[in-house]
This record gives sequence, C-alpha cells and structure tokens, in this order.
Amino acid sequence: MIKIEHLGIAVKDLGVSNELFSKLLGKNPYKEETVEGEAVKTSFFEIGESKIELLEAMNENSAIAKYLDKNREGIHHIAFGVDNLEAEIQRLKAEGFEFINETPKEGADNKWVVFLHPKTTNGVLVELCMDRKIL
Amino acid sequence: MIKIEHLGIAVKDLGVSNELFSKLLGKNPYKEETVEGEAVKTSFFEIGESKIELLEAMNENSAIAKYLDKNREGIHHIAFGVDNLEAEIQRLKAEGFEFINETPKEGADNKWVVFLHPKTTNGVLVELCMDRKIL
Repeated sequence: MIKIEHLGIAVKDLGVSNELFSKLLGKNPYKEETVEGEAVKTSFFEIGESKIELLEAMNENSAIAKYLDKNREGIHHIAFGVDNLEAEIQRLKAEGFEFINETPKEGADNKWVVFLHPKTTNGVLVELCMDRKIL
Repeated sequence: MIKIEHLGIAVKDLGVSNELFSKLLGKNPYKEETVEGEAVKTSFFEIGESKIELLEAMNENSAIAKYLDKNREGIHHIAFGVDNLEAEIQRLKAEGFEFINETPKEGADNKWVVFLHPKTTNGVLVELCMDRKIL
C-alpha cells in the first residue's frame, strides 16, 4: 500500500457536485470519465498525491444507484494505490480478507482495480488499484 | 487545501480495529491518543502523505457514539490539510459553506481543526486541519 489513491464519493447529480467540490477544493476536476462496466459517470479532482472521485449512477443497476437507495450521498469507498496488485491480493487473502472481485477489472482513470468486501474491513469499502500500464 | 491529511473511521472497538487495519495496511499504528474534548480514543496509521485515524467513543455523549447509533462502522470524515486555516475558513464562508465550528479547536495529532456542516458538502463531513505550531 503506497498511498490513498482516491476517495470515491457517491453523488446524485455530477454537475451539481462538480460545482460544489470545485468551490470546496478551490479547483476544477481535471477529467470526467464514463465507466461503462460500472455504469457510472465520474469526475476527478487532484488533492496532493490523492484524488477525489465523484460518482453518479448511469442507470438503476449501477452499484452507485443501489448505494444511494440505502444511503445518503457521501463517501462510498477508499482506494489504496499499490505497486503490485497480485502480491497485495495474495497477502490480504492470507490475512483473511474477502474480496468482492479478486480478478482485477478496468477502473476509471486508467487503473486495474479490485474491491475487498466491507464485511471484513470494518464496514469500509476498500479498493486496491494499480496503474493499468504496470500489469 | 494541500492534501488529504487523514480519513476518520468510526469503530466500536479500537483494539479489534487496530488489529484489522494493521493487517490491511501491513503496518502498526504509529500512535494512540485520547482527545478528551471529543471523548474519543484514536489511533493513527501512516499511508503515503496521509493518515488513517480510527475513532472509538469514550462515552455515549461522544459524536462517534451518536454516529454509531445511526450508522454502521465506517468512514466518518475526511480531513484536508491546509497551511492557512483562517484564510480557508473565510474563503469557504464566502463560497456559502457552513461550519459546525469556525473557531478552531484542538484536534488529535497536534492539529487545529474545524468542521464543515455535511448539509453543505454533499453529505460528507469535512474537517480542515493545520499543525498546531503554525497558528
């Protein structure tokens, strides 16, 4: 685990929240990106070595739509940057952590990503991500 | 806003969660600290330029106890590090953000801290913090 790569925040309206977080952070998002596989529209803000990722559901099957059915808008997940994704997956499995997916899938912002199951991480949805070019 | 200074995670049992996050992050907390004014016991883990802060309530009047009455364990707040706390407070007030406290109070880990009200920040409890020696 190298750093907090990003924090994912579930929002209802990306346009409204882009404006809000631009005011909060004093800067505009550096990119917007659609992740078809997750049915989300995202935007990214830089903050130090980390990023804030805003996530809006594209349809009702998106994990973000399901999250917002049960929860208010807010912090959805924390993503840790790693330099060897496979080694971290094996290390964490050996420690007893469970994964939602342990086969890396393509995430936003050019990353390979896996998610740990919140039931083994104190209720926190934890993502591990690694730049896609490294794999 | 310089960086994500820390993420605060509300937990029921600091001992249990210290063990869990030590396994997750592959390292032990670098400190434990009691914040009497907030009635919390905390522990801190380094991760890159940021920290993970675990928070356990010391009594039922603690904000963490009240949070855990309504929510599961999980991410409680995000703290941004700033180099001029007063200037950031004034900038954000001018942008229309509301504060829970706009007079800085002593936080854990040698910081002056203020909290923005989640109703103006997309449901995210946002803390601003600055090293106490700078003020």
